[in-house]
Amino acid sequence: MNIEEKSSLKELIKSQKPNFPLEQRFYLDPTIFNLDMKTFFFNQWIIVGHESRIPEKGNYFLFNIKNESIIIIRDDNGKVNCLYNVCRHRGSKICLENEGSTKNLVCPYHAWSYKLDGNLKSARLMDEDFCSDEWSLHKCNSIIFEGLIFINFSNKPDNFNEFIKPLKPFIELHGLGEAKIASRRKYPTMGNWKLTLDNFHECYHCQPSHPEYCEVHSSDYIKAYGAGSNTGPLSSEFMKELLTWNKYAKKIGHHIGEYTESKFSNFFRSAERTPFSKGKLSETKSGKPASTIMGKFKEFDGGYTTIGTSPFNSLLMSNDFATIFTFIPKGPLETEVEIMWLVHKDAKKGVDYNVDKITWMWHETTLEDKKIIENNQNGVMSKKYIPGPLSQMEVGLEKLKSWYLNHLELILGS
Amino acid sequence: MNIEEKSSLKELIKSQKPNFPLEQRFYLDPTIFNLDMKTFFFNQWIIVGHESRIPEKGNYFLFNIKNESIIIIRDDNGKVNCLYNVCRHRGSKICLENEGSTKNLVCPYHAWSYKLDGNLKSARLMDEDFCSDEWSLHKCNSIIFEGLIFINFSNKPDNFNEFIKPLKPFIELHGLGEAKIASRRKYPTMGNWKLTLDNFHECYHCQPSHPEYCEVHSSDYIKAYGAGSNTGPLSSEFMKELLTWNKYAKKIGHHIGEYTESKFSNFFRSAERTPFSKGKLSETKSGKPASTIMGKFKEFDGGYTTIGTSPFNSLLMSNDFATIFTFIPKGPLETEVEIMWLVHKDAKKGVDYNVDKITWMWHETTLEDKKIIENNQNGVMSKKYIPGPLSQMEVGLEKLKSWYLNHLELILGS
Amino acid sequence: MNIEEKSSLKELIKSQKPNFPLEQRFYLDPTIFNLDMKTFFFNQWIIVGHESRIPEKGNYFLFNIKNESIIIIRDDNGKVNCLYNVCRHRGSKICLENEGSTKNLVCPYHAWSYKLDGNLKSARLMDEDFCSDEWSLHKCNSIIFEGLIFINFSNKPDNFNEFIKPLKPFIELHGLGEAKIASRRKYPTMGNWKLTLDNFHECYHCQPSHPEYCEVHSSDYIKAYGAGSNTGPLSSEFMKELLTWNKYAKKIGHHIGEYTESKFSNFFRSAERTPFSKGKLSETKSGKPASTIMGKFKEFDGGYTTIGTSPFNSLLMSNDFATIFTFIPKGPLETEVEIMWLVHKDAKKGVDYNVDKITWMWHETTLEDKKIIENNQNGVMSKKYIPGPLSQMEVGLEKLKSWYLNHLELILGS
Repeated sequence: MNIEEKSSLKELIKSQKPNFPLEQRFYLDPTIFNLDMKTFFFNQWIIVGHESRIPEKGNYFLFNIKNESIIIIRDDNGKVNCLYNVCRHRGSKICLENEGSTKNLVCPYHAWSYKLDGNLKSARLMDEDFCSDEWSLHKCNSIIFEGLIFINFSNKPDNFNEFIKPLKPFIELHGLGEAKIASRRKYPTMGNWKLTLDNFHECYHCQPSHPEYCEVHSSDYIKAYGAGSNTGPLSSEFMKELLTWNKYAKKIGHHIGEYTESKFSNFFRSAERTPFSKGKLSETKSGKPASTIMGKFKEFDGGYTTIGTSPFNSLLMSNDFATIFTFIPKGPLETEVEIMWLVHKDAKKGVDYNVDKITWMWHETTLEDKKIIENNQNGVMSKKYIPGPLSQMEVGLEKLKSWYLNHLELILGS
Repeated sequence: MNIEEKSSLKELIKSQKPNFPLEQRFYLDPTIFNLDMKTFFFNQWIIVGHESRIPEKGNYFLFNIKNESIIIIRDDNGKVNCLYNVCRHRGSKICLENEGSTKNLVCPYHAWSYKLDGNLKSARLMDEDFCSDEWSLHKCNSIIFEGLIFINFSNKPDNFNEFIKPLKPFIELHGLGEAKIASRRKYPTMGNWKLTLDNFHECYHCQPSHPEYCEVHSSDYIKAYGAGSNTGPLSSEFMKELLTWNKYAKKIGHHIGEYTESKFSNFFRSAERTPFSKGKLSETKSGKPASTIMGKFKEFDGGYTTIGTSPFNSLLMSNDFATIFTFIPKGPLETEVEIMWLVHKDAKKGVDYNVDKITWMWHETTLEDKKIIENNQNGVMSKKYIPGPLSQMEVGLEKLKSWYLNHLELILGS
Repeated sequence: MNIEEKSSLKELIKSQKPNFPLEQRFYLDPTIFNLDMKTFFFNQWIIVGHESRIPEKGNYFLFNIKNESIIIIRDDNGKVNCLYNVCRHRGSKICLENEGSTKNLVCPYHAWSYKLDGNLKSARLMDEDFCSDEWSLHKCNSIIFEGLIFINFSNKPDNFNEFIKPLKPFIELHGLGEAKIASRRKYPTMGNWKLTLDNFHECYHCQPSHPEYCEVHSSDYIKAYGAGSNTGPLSSEFMKELLTWNKYAKKIGHHIGEYTESKFSNFFRSAERTPFSKGKLSETKSGKPASTIMGKFKEFDGGYTTIGTSPFNSLLMSNDFATIFTFIPKGPLETEVEIMWLVHKDAKKGVDYNVDKITWMWHETTLEDKKIIENNQNGVMSKKYIPGPLSQMEVGLEKLKSWYLNHLELILGS
């Protein structure tokens, strides 16, 4: 980006109005998209999977984003390694299948062979001064926390412990380290990643667009908390329910409360525990549990845990299963939404849990969102798209937007 | 466009030779295409349909061009409104189907609801200072004339009455206000809009390429008038026929004559009435009428009316039906040709008119043109494409080219 | 390309390290691709076919590259003409089929008619001062040598005799002027042309990737000569075989030896004759001949002739058939590989030769290369692709790279 472009972008950022969505350029410009990737996606700790997907030595899967492909593989010591899928010789991809199992990582081109930790094992016919140690596969920053595989593409990643700290008790409560994947689905969405997240960060559209969601959650909850705590108008009704439930859950020793960012930082995290409607125990059609209880729960407490680790991941969890979202920007007009449903590792399919019951709500809702977002993208392309005023239920979207704009401003400098 | 680009384009315009077609850049450059759209398509009164397509309150159809989508809808008072298909809240498309019927325009995202005239009816949970009146759907300039729906994307559209004046008696003769659509088809053509119109503005190619057209029209007519009056070499044979016919048609009180622009302006209009070959009464294979007589015609007068309202529309009319073209530029290398055939509103399908007979000639001819234009586009991409000399039958193309270049020169300033 | 871009490219060229492959930008940048086309493909003598493909007057085929289409047609005097497929009138393509036969070249648009040598024969209704002689079809430089059709897009093509001189005895040995096409196939490959040629100019990948090739050729040959003479580590074993074979072949009067460029020029040519493994007479699965003996061979001499006329063509020839490659860059990330197999013109299909036996090895090997190259291209797109050290068997690739970089440097000036 040259100086002129930079200065025009800075002006654009300044001209965005509070309580209105972003202007058109933010939703389609390839220059802004590339800046977004560098500034946000490639700088955050992203959950790309759960280690139960690769239980045995040599098991691997790929995480692909734009031109990057990461091999996520379990090595001989049981450690999960995240390695760039690029041979150090002439750059060929090494793993060609999206998942599989292998003893060594052998490049299909010239047969350079790497150990499962990425170290070069053998390369034929190299000059005498060739030093194998210098040609290990590039590593991607990664950490396993509670079974969740986090990666970070940054050269200077934020400290993971500092990052995870406020979310830790919420995640640990659910015992994801003792979980397994019940189902995994992808929802390719032809919309800019920010339009896709705008949708996820407000529940103003839930009533007209999501019958399944509205069947499961109470209208008071949706209004006030549908897109996170205090993202809609205050509901004294729901606050009363929440206080009552908090007392009960605390009494039986379950973690409660909420976390929101109090000051601007690299992180955009949130977490909260809230009660389902009276009588409901899980985020299912019937409200009844659909699998065995997980983690530290002593009994089904009728509570719901919602966590955002970054704009790119959300964890929505009942006592018996977890629904984990990853939002992967594919291009200025394309985002892939991946959902992974986790249950207790010992739960038996068809006996202890039923995949359809677990996936029902968010599968249907995400299909609906895909359509909504694509219509939104189509409309936003018009020269007559001018941001309109946000409603009282779009506070979450406004928060995300502010954080985004502040970040860009910081990156572009003064 | 920066100063350098502007000056290079101005030089290019000046270097175009009279009586030769345009150079390559005009037929493929995306910068010129965007300038063309702004200068021409988005500045002309364009016929996008006939009101018989939406007879009832709430009936609508969409007109889509590049990133713009216009809802053409009949409101509760029977008025046709042309509204941008973009919600004033967050920009979602409102109508998702290409045509349909509705009581209100409800945005599928957050349920903002508009009346059929575009006024905002309701929006939930807005701040107290929200004023509905300020958030009506954006209107597109539009006028219904003789049942034809004209729209104009310009912020300062040309005066419609001034625009339509010279064409008025020609159009009114045919009673299109009392017509209905017999058929409507689209011909997506992979060629620049100017190559597509070059084809339409000369009949030099008719003899080698259009057997159906040559079956219906006489070779004298084709030579001299095939692409409009005096667009080919003088034919004393045809002039004699024309004079004789003019006397007859005038005598029975039918409008006759021709209109061509006498000086340069925003408008590129033409109109003329000419006789078919002896014995033919309509533009059909047999020359016999294929539907009931329309408009002010007292009897079948054996005449043909051809009108160009702008480069983007042509009306080719027999006494009993009208063939109306819309040329819609889709990209530097893509144009959509849409044809609408109109008959008298009371004519009964299968009884009074036969769709195949009415559509036969221009359907076949437009399919042929599609191929021709696509071959032309492919050849024009070569570095060895150098414009060659035009024939005596390509005067119409030269006229269009001059008007186009004069316009661009004016826009680019001195 | 402006001054800044030019200077950045020159720096990039200088920063390329010896004995490492090129950096990412060379394999994907559209600006470099366009420069490559201009500098290399459009400046070389390229083999685009064999004249046996158009034996009769009026027979033609098209050679298409980027926006250019060349009609290769035999005229009434039996001469092969290479003509731009662009009508001199308004630029339409003239020939629409990839091959066929015709009496005249008649433009399908306005019927301008050309003789088979490209001279304009007739054009209707032109002005009186129109001079047919000035409007012949544009010719592309072309020469038939030993039945091979060479074209050159340059305005100042290199002298053909000077170009072909060192390769002449190697080509003439095989009697390609008395040959016919046994088979022809295309292998569209989603990789940059330089990645595609990198693959062809080293045989380090042959052992892991090409079982068929390794079945036919000895491992000593592959190591030392697989990608041309001395492109791998010295093999005293193979040198001994070569010397013995040279004596024998010379004795029976067959041409032997090798040619490599000794100084930098526009040309990148190579040629050599080498022995197959003991007992093998042809590049087939069994090692047995698969067709009748060709050219000046007095007996099957167990030798193999490999010739590169430019980076864009390779001729790999047994005594009984020839395999001829053309590499056609289609875009920054796409190359078409075309293979033509030639046999003696009098050999009878199914009797004297078997297509499957002749095509087996290079058909299988080229399919394998297609996959390998595509994986390489995918990996090279990563930001973590950094060129790695070349092995002792990648000397041919290094040569090609040096020639390429020297050329670009020359073009960009000091």
